[in-house]
Amino acid sequence: MFDYKERRQKLYALMQDRGIDLIFLPKHSADLDYLTGTERRVVTFGNVAYTHHWVAGAFLHPNFEPHFVLPRMIVEFDSPNGVDTNTTTVSELDDAYAKFSQVAKKFGPVKRIAVSARTWSETMINLIKVFPDAEIVNAEEVVNKLRRIKSPEEIALMTKACHLVDGVLDNVKGRVLAGTAELDLKSEINFQMNNLGSKTESFDTAVWSMGPKNKRDASDRRTSNPIEAGMGVSFDFGSVIDGYCADFGRTIHVGDPNAEYEKVYKLVMDAQAAGIAATRPGALASEVHKATRDVIVEGGYGDWFRHRTGHCIGLDVHEYPYISEEDDTPLEVGMTFTIEPSVFWPGRVGVRVEDIIVVEENGGRKINEFTTDLIAN
Amino acid sequence: MFDYKERRQKLYALMQDRGIDLIFLPKHSADLDYLTGTERRVVTFGNVAYTHHWVAGAFLHPNFEPHFVLPRMIVEFDSPNGVDTNTTTVSELDDAYAKFSQVAKKFGPVKRIAVSARTWSETMINLIKVFPDAEIVNAEEVVNKLRRIKSPEEIALMTKACHLVDGVLDNVKGRVLAGTAELDLKSEINFQMNNLGSKTESFDTAVWSMGPKNKRDASDRRTSNPIEAGMGVSFDFGSVIDGYCADFGRTIHVGDPNAEYEKVYKLVMDAQAAGIAATRPGALASEVHKATRDVIVEGGYGDWFRHRTGHCIGLDVHEYPYISEEDDTPLEVGMTFTIEPSVFWPGRVGVRVEDIIVVEENGGRKINEFTTDLIAN
Repeated sequence: MFDYKERRQKLYALMQDRGIDLIFLPKHSADLDYLTGTERRVVTFGNVAYTHHWVAGAFLHPNFEPHFVLPRMIVEFDSPNGVDTNTTTVSELDDAYAKFSQVAKKFGPVKRIAVSARTWSETMINLIKVFPDAEIVNAEEVVNKLRRIKSPEEIALMTKACHLVDGVLDNVKGRVLAGTAELDLKSEINFQMNNLGSKTESFDTAVWSMGPKNKRDASDRRTSNPIEAGMGVSFDFGSVIDGYCADFGRTIHVGDPNAEYEKVYKLVMDAQAAGIAATRPGALASEVHKATRDVIVEGGYGDWFRHRTGHCIGLDVHEYPYISEEDDTPLEVGMTFTIEPSVFWPGRVGVRVEDIIVVEENGGRKINEFTTDLIAN
Repeated sequence: MFDYKERRQKLYALMQDRGIDLIFLPKHSADLDYLTGTERRVVTFGNVAYTHHWVAGAFLHPNFEPHFVLPRMIVEFDSPNGVDTNTTTVSELDDAYAKFSQVAKKFGPVKRIAVSARTWSETMINLIKVFPDAEIVNAEEVVNKLRRIKSPEEIALMTKACHLVDGVLDNVKGRVLAGTAELDLKSEINFQMNNLGSKTESFDTAVWSMGPKNKRDASDRRTSNPIEAGMGVSFDFGSVIDGYCADFGRTIHVGDPNAEYEKVYKLVMDAQAAGIAATRPGALASEVHKATRDVIVEGGYGDWFRHRTGHCIGLDVHEYPYISEEDDTPLEVGMTFTIEPSVFWPGRVGVRVEDIIVVEENGGRKINEFTTDLIAN
């Protein structure tokens, strides 16, 4: 679907600039997906582990085709679309280190090797053994440099993922009623996302009530309680289309909202609008954060907007740069990020809105189409 | 619930034996849960990442209380039960490396540091910077030495997790009918597991048909097709109770099974029974594998039993030792592992059974109670 070779050529140019001789990307990383099209397996709460699992990944070097090393069980059972022709399979009775190091050493002298940021330490320890004199650096800086700018094809997939979640909430919104279990809504959302073509949930779907009827905070994403009237029910979920993630949020009120809910709801939507208005090529990520945050601070609820404004998104849910006070990255055309202001005041009011914005020449364009008007069932 | 201090005392003794001065365990690891009771967050397909996320974890040293380092966002939003009093919080504008290294250096001289096997390389790179002369080793060997032996309390939780999945399949089995979408069954299973108290799925629930009506292999766990008569529908799923994972499998036939299905079904159940019979303290993991496998080989289907017999299980789904040809670990009382033989012959027949067995003085005891009799709807 994508021109992975072209992506790798750009990577190799960045590697050369930084004196990086070789890159290792683990099988589970979106980095490997981005650069080779290798699909990630759906993740699991309890670790899934095969014999010699630590070898799983690929080496990328400017003068070679990517070389994969995979435990036999991944080849046999975790590769429904087959594996690359350039794959060394490590079977249960093999000497895994011997096979891994033989591949690693074929690329010539290595003074600096970069590894994907979430490569397992077990793999790192073996890489250090193979290259005792090499410096090991984080590949994030070079790979994210590419991943942060989305092509029109990538934006089309993210748009599909966003419109999918818009549609799911549209289907479910009428069921946000007193007495309905939050878990029912969560299950229904997950079912519909899958049914409409999402590979899996991009992250753990959350449905939670906040407001005067309980002391619950947004950190409590376990969702088994029945909904009570007089509360805002927040949704936070995302789909996955061809590896690309959505991340979407709305709050729907049950029963007639009180004056504070109405005020806070408007404030949060105004804050998001201010963030979108501040989005343009060259603006700093931190400036978009400040523009969003200022609205809530000026409205008197600054203490209860307790997190960053957003984050870039693509093959991963949270990607650099972050729309956050410490991140002074200048925005570029093709970046896609969330603007997700909230007021989370346990026992009083909880409202949050989250959409994905794409940076275009003329400013920020919201991809999601679900209304931000106040909904009260 | 558990005596974490006692667990840590045992760990410290093993560390001393091996000359390990310090251990770092990341927040996302079951190792940290095992040794401190820190809950893991439900995992996500697309990475979730906070500013300075790489610091997240704890240092364990025999002469100190565990010392946690956490990014502010984890303290604020991913710690519904609060954080340990001995926690250094790293905020967005902080110098994360300075804070992390200050904690890391408080433990005195470090010649050898062990890290959990799936610690992120980004964290490893910073640990190398803090301790340039220290040897970094995999903590798996020492931590798994403890985790592999389950106490009566742990076995009680695993029993609860197993009986939960037994009950869910009992509720769902009557719905395994021609025309039902596999995805419906998957959604129903996930809903019921959550509703009965499972924290999340222990791994990605799979429902898939194999048999003469398609060429599908067990690697294809995407489950949206409607079920056809004349096929075996395999289930593979697990619950999570207080962090402890179940992993459970059955195959239910739709319509009257043909003679081969009946033969293979009996073979797979006989193989499992042989594996259980071979289980006793002192038997090697590989011997249980061989006892199980031999039944299927002698029945003429050896080429289609394409994976290890099983794996230990507990806070993770797959733990060492593995019930596999390369693993000569002697079994000990209190080990819990799966015996999960299969015949996966795409286009012909697919049957699999999976239960959790606990090693007792007198042999292996199956924890699951769901029947292994042939079910045909």
